[in-house]
Amino acid sequence: MKHERLIPRGTPESRANAERVLVALELTSRINSLPFSDTASRTALFAELLRGALPEDATLFPPFTCDYGLGITFGARVFINQNCSFFDLGGIIIGDRVMIGLGVTLLTSGHPLYPEERTDGITVAPIVIEDDVWIGANVTVTPGVTIGCGAVIGAGTVVAKDVVPRTVVTGPGQTVRQTFPPR
Amino acid sequence: MKHERLIPRGTPESRANAERVLVALELTSRINSLPFSDTASRTALFAELLRGALPEDATLFPPFTCDYGLGITFGARVFINQNCSFFDLGGIIIGDRVMIGLGVTLLTSGHPLYPEERTDGITVAPIVIEDDVWIGANVTVTPGVTIGCGAVIGAGTVVAKDVVPRTVVTGPGQTVRQTFPPR
Amino acid sequence: MKHERLIPRGTPESRANAERVLVALELTSRINSLPFSDTASRTALFAELLRGALPEDATLFPPFTCDYGLGITFGARVFINQNCSFFDLGGIIIGDRVMIGLGVTLLTSGHPLYPEERTDGITVAPIVIEDDVWIGANVTVTPGVTIGCGAVIGAGTVVAKDVVPRTVVTGPGQTVRQTFPPR
Repeated sequence: MKHERLIPRGTPESRANAERVLVALELTSRINSLPFSDTASRTALFAELLRGALPEDATLFPPFTCDYGLGITFGARVFINQNCSFFDLGGIIIGDRVMIGLGVTLLTSGHPLYPEERTDGITVAPIVIEDDVWIGANVTVTPGVTIGCGAVIGAGTVVAKDVVPRTVVTGPGQTVRQTFPPR
Repeated sequence: MKHERLIPRGTPESRANAERVLVALELTSRINSLPFSDTASRTALFAELLRGALPEDATLFPPFTCDYGLGITFGARVFINQNCSFFDLGGIIIGDRVMIGLGVTLLTSGHPLYPEERTDGITVAPIVIEDDVWIGANVTVTPGVTIGCGAVIGAGTVVAKDVVPRTVVTGPGQTVRQTFPPR
Repeated sequence: MKHERLIPRGTPESRANAERVLVALELTSRINSLPFSDTASRTALFAELLRGALPEDATLFPPFTCDYGLGITFGARVFINQNCSFFDLGGIIIGDRVMIGLGVTLLTSGHPLYPEERTDGITVAPIVIEDDVWIGANVTVTPGVTIGCGAVIGAGTVVAKDVVPRTVVTGPGQTVRQTFPPR
C-alpha cells in the first residue's frame, strides 16, 4: 500500500482512534435515523462529526457512515449520493466538482496482512480524488489510491491502484475503456 | 448506453426531477426508520412514494432507497429483499415472479462521460427485468440493460449489457456459466 | 453448491423459516434505528435475535441485518464492522479472532437454478470462516464456502469457492496474490 503507515496497537494514538470510532458511530447513527427533511439536525450533527460544517455547496445524502470524521477535505461543489461509507482515518481529499455515486466505499485503513502480525495495529494510507472525477455506484476504493482529474470509475469497480486522469476504468485490473483527449 | 436520453440541466424537467429526489429521500428515510412490524405505516409511505400501492402480492423488505419512485412497474408476485436501491428515473420494468436479492442496485440514470460535458444533464435509460429472473445479492445493473426471462445473475455481478434468457451469468464480462434448455 | 440441502416449499420447516424471517427483520430494524450509544437496548435485542447473548468479547457494529439469527456460531474475539448482512439459515461458523470488514455479506441460502424448479424451495449450505481470517470490506461469500485459517479476502471480492489457509485472494476467480509460509 502506497504511503502506508502503521499505527501500532496499545499506543496513545491507537487508543484515541478507538475512542473516536465510537463518537463517529454515535453521530452517524443519529444522522441516519433522522427524517431527511430535518436538515437542521443533520447539519448540526455533520458539523459535530466533521468538527466544522459541511461546505454549503456540498451535497451529501444520508445514510452515511464513517469511522473517524476528521480526515475528510472537501473541494467545491462536491456531490455524494446515498449509502456512502468514508473510512477516513488515513485522510481523504476530495477535489472540486467530484461526483460520488450511491454506495461508494472509501477505505483508508487496514491491517497487516501476515497472520502473526494482523493485530499489531492499523495501517493507514490516504485517498486522493482529484477534480471532476465521477465515481459510479458501489465502487470500493482501497487505501493509498489517487484517482486522476476527470476520470470516471464504472459502477461496482474495486479501485486498488491509481487511476490515470481523464480515463474511464471498469472491472478487475481497472481496464481503461476510454480516454478523453484534452479539448 | 442503449436507448439513452439526456435530460439537460436547467430545464423544467430537470428541476422537477431534482425536487422529486428530495421527496423520495424523505419518504424512504421514514420507511427505513420504522420498526418492521409497522406494516400500516410502511404500506402508506410506499403508496405515497410510488403514487399507488405496492401490489398486494409483492414482497419488499426494507431498508429500501430510491431517488424517484414513479418509474417502477411491478409484475405479479415480485420479491425484493433488504437493502435494495432502485434509481428509477429512466424506468424499471419488473416481470412476474422476479426475485431480487439483498443489496441489489438498479441504476437507470447517469452523467455524460466526457469531463467537459459531465454536468450538462442527467442521462437516463430503462432497465427491463423479464419474468422469472433471479438476481443474486449485491448485483449492480447499469442503465439500458434487459435481463432475459428465467436468467440468474450470480451474487456480486455488475450487469452492464443484456443477459440472454435462461442463462446463469456471473463475474466480469458476464460469463455464461449455464444455460437452461426449454422443457 | 457443496453440502447443499433443499428445504422444500410448503413444509413445516419452510413455514417456520418464513415466520422466523419476520422476527429477524423486526429485531434488526429496531437494532438499526437505535442511537449507537444505547448499548443496553442493542445488547438486549441481539440476545433476543440470537437467542443468547452476543459473546462479551465480540464487537459488532450496527447497522446489521440477518434473516434468521439462530445459525451463527461466534469464536473468541470476533470483530464485525458496520453494514454487514449475515443470511444464516444454512449455518455460519466464525472462528477465533476473525475480522469482518464493512458491508460484508455472508449468504447461506439460495434457490434452485433451473427456472421451472426455482420456487420448489430454499437451498441451504453452511459457511465456515476459520481462525484468524480477515475479510475485507464489501466482500460477498456464497453458500457452502470455507475460508481457511489466516486467509485474507481483498475488498469487494465475491468468494464462490473455498479459500486455502494463509493466502490472500482478490478478484474474479479468487486469484491468490500472496501466501504466508508458517513461522
